[in-house]
Amino acid sequence: MSNVLITGSSRGLGLELVQHVSAHPGLSGGLAIATARKCSSELDQIVAASNGSIIFVALDVADEESVRKSAEKVKSVLGGRSLDVIINCAGVHSETHGKLTEMSDLDWQLSVNVSGTHNVLRQYLALMGSSQLKKVVNIPYGSMILAREVAFARCPAYKISKAALNALTVQYATSYEEDGFIFLAVSPGWLKSEMGGQDADLTVAEGAEAVVKLALSADRRDNGSFKNVHVSGWEKYAGQNLPW
Amino acid sequence: MSNVLITGSSRGLGLELVQHVSAHPGLSGGLAIATARKCSSELDQIVAASNGSIIFVALDVADEESVRKSAEKVKSVLGGRSLDVIINCAGVHSETHGKLTEMSDLDWQLSVNVSGTHNVLRQYLALMGSSQLKKVVNIPYGSMILAREVAFARCPAYKISKAALNALTVQYATSYEEDGFIFLAVSPGWLKSEMGGQDADLTVAEGAEAVVKLALSADRRDNGSFKNVHVSGWEKYAGQNLPW
Repeated sequence: MSNVLITGSSRGLGLELVQHVSAHPGLSGGLAIATARKCSSELDQIVAASNGSIIFVALDVADEESVRKSAEKVKSVLGGRSLDVIINCAGVHSETHGKLTEMSDLDWQLSVNVSGTHNVLRQYLALMGSSQLKKVVNIPYGSMILAREVAFARCPAYKISKAALNALTVQYATSYEEDGFIFLAVSPGWLKSEMGGQDADLTVAEGAEAVVKLALSADRRDNGSFKNVHVSGWEKYAGQNLPW
Repeated sequence: MSNVLITGSSRGLGLELVQHVSAHPGLSGGLAIATARKCSSELDQIVAASNGSIIFVALDVADEESVRKSAEKVKSVLGGRSLDVIINCAGVHSETHGKLTEMSDLDWQLSVNVSGTHNVLRQYLALMGSSQLKKVVNIPYGSMILAREVAFARCPAYKISKAALNALTVQYATSYEEDGFIFLAVSPGWLKSEMGGQDADLTVAEGAEAVVKLALSADRRDNGSFKNVHVSGWEKYAGQNLPW
């Protein structure tokens, strides 16, 4: 009976997370709150087929007012129930071609990937006060963490925003530790997504399943850590702590 | 005969850096270009007494147009000479009281401390092409790196921006390595400044001296690293590489 909010859920990993959260036995009876700027046709179908266990709420992480309004709506939908888990999957990714002085997307990446996550947490943590889980998972959008070590990952602004997002995760973890919250930064692996390409390691479904498993199994000792997913058969996806 | 540009030089560490750069035997005959949003009376006095070896150029790192104009002016002052060293000391610091959801200064800190540094590098690297030194030092303003481990450092937005600034340093280091540039992130130590307070370890002058020494001694093996200053008599300031 856990209620889970997922941002960036109109496509890719976020969309897959909604399905895995909804289908997971450990979360049955709860509500999956799928958020994105706009509902996609894929998400719309999933919501329609869910018998009310998945709802869509419009939310633009980069727009504080939109986040505030969405939280009011979610609070009303939950009635007196708590929000138990937040998976921050919303984010943007773009590339820089040429030298670093050509990088023109830094402000944008920081405002969506870092401040956007902060905007969500500022509004939604208040709905988690009475939860028994109180888990927050921050996922750098697009699974480029492992890919960034290879030469074709021409996304310096994304990498910089990711470092800042990790630091944000640690600051939240420290601030809310005494209140029983567990904040994790999770690398979902290199996924066969639109961005990851078809040479990637894992299907998006495998990544989503592993993220949900990790979110549910994490305990207070994991608060503030940066975790890799655990996928059987993959030595490099062993659920290990990752370097910042 | 090296020409050095310092941002954030109207007060504190930046001001002290201008004096140390100007007085350093290894840099004699060159020009110290002191930049800040506005010239302070202290900087004004130093410039007036410098016999033309220090000039002030107005530059607001958060304002791209201001940075572009300043670079045009500096280019004109240098004539055909190269810019050799940039010390990015400009930055802001502010505190959050209460829980992390109260943090309201994140966008501001990111825009000045991270994007501001990027704005400077985007305009000024072009003036360094013919330099024999090509060194860039990024200094998190205010020397809170070591202090952040103590409880009174209530500056989560600053810490997040610092993580992003370090990542920016690494991205630049990678991008310009083949061109002979050396990018360093340098912790100047915990300084007895307005912000560091009088319980801090080092005088601002000691910090400035150590930063200049480090900048001049760094070689290509140091490109992309995060260095502590070396101050004799201090075990913790041993010039070591610091964890990100």
